[in-house]
Amino acid sequence: MFPYKTSIQFDRKSSQALYLQLSNQIIQYIKNQTLAPNTKLPGSRILAEQLNVHRKTIVACYEELLLQGWVESIPKKGTFVLGSLPILHRQKLKDSAIFDLKENAGFCFYKNSILPEKSTKRNPDFMCFNDGISDSRLTPIDEIARTYRRISAKKMIVEHLSYVSTYGNQTLREVLTDYLNATRGLHTTKENVLITRGSQMGIWLSSQLLLKKDDVIVVGNTNYESADSTFRYQEAKIERVPVDEDGIVTSDIEMLCKRKKIKAVYVTSHHHHPTTVTLSAKRRIHLLNLSRKYNFAIIEDDYDYDFNYNHAPILPLASHDLHGNVIYIGSVCKTVAPVYRIGYLIASKAFVDEASKLRGFMDRQGDALLELTFASFIKSGDLDRHIRKVMKIYKQRRDLFCKLLKDELGGFFQFETPKGGMAVWTKLNSNYSWAAISEAARKYRLEIGDWRRYDAAKLGHNSIRIGFASYNEEEIYELINRLKNAINSIL
Amino acid sequence: MFPYKTSIQFDRKSSQALYLQLSNQIIQYIKNQTLAPNTKLPGSRILAEQLNVHRKTIVACYEELLLQGWVESIPKKGTFVLGSLPILHRQKLKDSAIFDLKENAGFCFYKNSILPEKSTKRNPDFMCFNDGISDSRLTPIDEIARTYRRISAKKMIVEHLSYVSTYGNQTLREVLTDYLNATRGLHTTKENVLITRGSQMGIWLSSQLLLKKDDVIVVGNTNYESADSTFRYQEAKIERVPVDEDGIVTSDIEMLCKRKKIKAVYVTSHHHHPTTVTLSAKRRIHLLNLSRKYNFAIIEDDYDYDFNYNHAPILPLASHDLHGNVIYIGSVCKTVAPVYRIGYLIASKAFVDEASKLRGFMDRQGDALLELTFASFIKSGDLDRHIRKVMKIYKQRRDLFCKLLKDELGGFFQFETPKGGMAVWTKLNSNYSWAAISEAARKYRLEIGDWRRYDAAKLGHNSIRIGFASYNEEEIYELINRLKNAINSIL
Repeated sequence: MFPYKTSIQFDRKSSQALYLQLSNQIIQYIKNQTLAPNTKLPGSRILAEQLNVHRKTIVACYEELLLQGWVESIPKKGTFVLGSLPILHRQKLKDSAIFDLKENAGFCFYKNSILPEKSTKRNPDFMCFNDGISDSRLTPIDEIARTYRRISAKKMIVEHLSYVSTYGNQTLREVLTDYLNATRGLHTTKENVLITRGSQMGIWLSSQLLLKKDDVIVVGNTNYESADSTFRYQEAKIERVPVDEDGIVTSDIEMLCKRKKIKAVYVTSHHHHPTTVTLSAKRRIHLLNLSRKYNFAIIEDDYDYDFNYNHAPILPLASHDLHGNVIYIGSVCKTVAPVYRIGYLIASKAFVDEASKLRGFMDRQGDALLELTFASFIKSGDLDRHIRKVMKIYKQRRDLFCKLLKDELGGFFQFETPKGGMAVWTKLNSNYSWAAISEAARKYRLEIGDWRRYDAAKLGHNSIRIGFASYNEEEIYELINRLKNAINSIL
Repeated sequence: MFPYKTSIQFDRKSSQALYLQLSNQIIQYIKNQTLAPNTKLPGSRILAEQLNVHRKTIVACYEELLLQGWVESIPKKGTFVLGSLPILHRQKLKDSAIFDLKENAGFCFYKNSILPEKSTKRNPDFMCFNDGISDSRLTPIDEIARTYRRISAKKMIVEHLSYVSTYGNQTLREVLTDYLNATRGLHTTKENVLITRGSQMGIWLSSQLLLKKDDVIVVGNTNYESADSTFRYQEAKIERVPVDEDGIVTSDIEMLCKRKKIKAVYVTSHHHHPTTVTLSAKRRIHLLNLSRKYNFAIIEDDYDYDFNYNHAPILPLASHDLHGNVIYIGSVCKTVAPVYRIGYLIASKAFVDEASKLRGFMDRQGDALLELTFASFIKSGDLDRHIRKVMKIYKQRRDLFCKLLKDELGGFFQFETPKGGMAVWTKLNSNYSWAAISEAARKYRLEIGDWRRYDAAKLGHNSIRIGFASYNEEEIYELINRLKNAINSIL
């Protein structure tokens, strides 16, 4: 019999269930034919004893293998590795194919190699670096829940409980129009506003409407990873232009325009993602002029407009857009909390009409109760009060984080104190590697995360984004301390 | 000097700060070259006097202009409009100003002719036929809002406020697994469950993963219009097979399978949409066997499972699916109210993993607060109590509606009393036309809606779906009365 006892290892600290750890290892042995076709697997009781696990774990594992189609169960005989394995039937695809036809137990579907999994698993003992997210503990949750319930109790609410407009709640569209016109210098009317579930839905809808296979979209190098993936899902051609301390280099976009037809430019003009720089006024106008001349769309993702520590925020490109070239995307996720799925896409009426139609087929409609809750939250001034409150806190955290990073670890890193946002773009000196630090950090219960995602184009800039806003002062001290210990341990 | 006093207007009621109102207007004048490059701006004291504002307002405005890069400050000389500003290209504008241009996008996008608009406009004086929707007045809104607030107040809630799993809330996945296994005979684990925003999202995700251009999907003739459109958006080939009193004709599907590769079959097995018939047991088994033999997916859209008046519901196809061929889709929209955007897609783990990844890119994640609210609502038995309560009411309404339709208008219509659901499939005798009735009905403040959508394949069956569940008894009398008047008026 195959030496299961010595071939199978369990990680009892892992969050993955034992039966899955087991089934995954067995699948590996089946795939490399260590467990050949038609091999009989041991009875569950026997294997449970050998591996010192509960029998139920083995039963669950075998069910999993069965479901995935690796084994078959023959009544009164036992469980056998399948004679004809699905992997052998897999269709040869071109190397460049984005969509792989995945064989499942029952049918084939298009599995793509583009969209990465969005992992949210956290080990509670670990501190984790993040991209720049808000502190959930500061969420005005009581206030919002109270408003939600108050609105639910209104008599007029009945008309909002059935199928409603795919554009989003009318009151919220009006309130948002006024709010954005007043605070961001937009000149829009309600008809220009589509309520979404967040910025990502805005990017998705824009991508669906603007890009088909081989259409060209321009992004900064580096760029926000999730936007990249969304465009690649459409099989668009992504052209990358440099980003310097004034933001995306628009003269490079102009050169591109002269060579080929481009459909859209994606920018995070206010604080470039990931490097946090602000697009200069000169380049803003240049980009707008180019969009006009070459008829392309500017997708302006204004993901953290609200947090500026040194000065009044710069108005978005959308505020200077005279010809409907800008698709302006934002949400309350960074400002209030990601749990509240309220965002917006603002563009010409023609584009909003089409995006709204499409939204109706992927998501039917938004949550009118939550939308009315936020209409009230914004109109009452509560949102502004919340922003003022947390901005003060985040500014202190930025200052402390940057001070400690400089004082304690200045010899290893280069960074600019960001003028806004929730993260610091941190460049590691070239004689150190994030791979080594990341590995060492785990011993100090610090999770760096996948640093490679910040360098999709493999520029080798050796930098990552480190969010500071979600940690309180004590945690910032601890975070820097763990990072310091990790670095010292590999010197 | 430029006539600042007459050119600048302040709105003192606006929530926008005065200095921002001022800077925005100056930027406009810089952009259109009214304030040419190198123009000197007046000293802050002088301008403050002219505009009758505090000097600090002017100072803040100039700082803003400086930060945005519109002006430069030369020591001991003053503040000047930047010399090197690229000029914004101006197009001739129509007299009616900037906002008109929003009507037209400054770029091209893919406008499709497939997805119809989902109209929700209602004239409040009119009664409107619907497809079979629940009565919003019966929504247990107080109960749900109370639970929402209670959950929001829990200490542990903080961990649910940030970015969470794209699969949906873990507790709801577990509760739903138990609930559906218990009530619908499924044999799933949490890993097979993706929480969606409703059935439509389930159809959309399935369509994205199963269908590319020219892939074949089989639907009944007639079929649910919204599913049709979703498949057509993927440029799939739609094959239509007949539907009779036992549901979709599976022997026709078998003939198709012999001729060509089909990727999927879409069924509303419990109550076929639109005709309301139930797929017979024999055909269910036949369809499952076919899916196994020919490796296609069955998209089972169980949109109104909960409402059965004459007998225990028939278990879904998914409950007999041994090989991961069925993608089972449902929601609480019909059962509780469409405003609560909670649905599910249940399939093999491989498919759910992929669907979840995709969902992360169109919608990032669900609403954890609402998902926890519904986990509690289902687990406490409140959902079941709600179903029992409204089922009794809907049964009475069905009986009354069918009785009146027969007694008052029996000479014009043929229909079967539906065993479940919320609508009656109503066939108009062939010597009358819905076009004429629809026209006449408006005079009696009755909106029939677009009857043509029930016959996408132009079979000429002369039938439409009429929902009864959303009207109380009085309204049903009134509805039949108006319909009767309309018909009589054209005899």
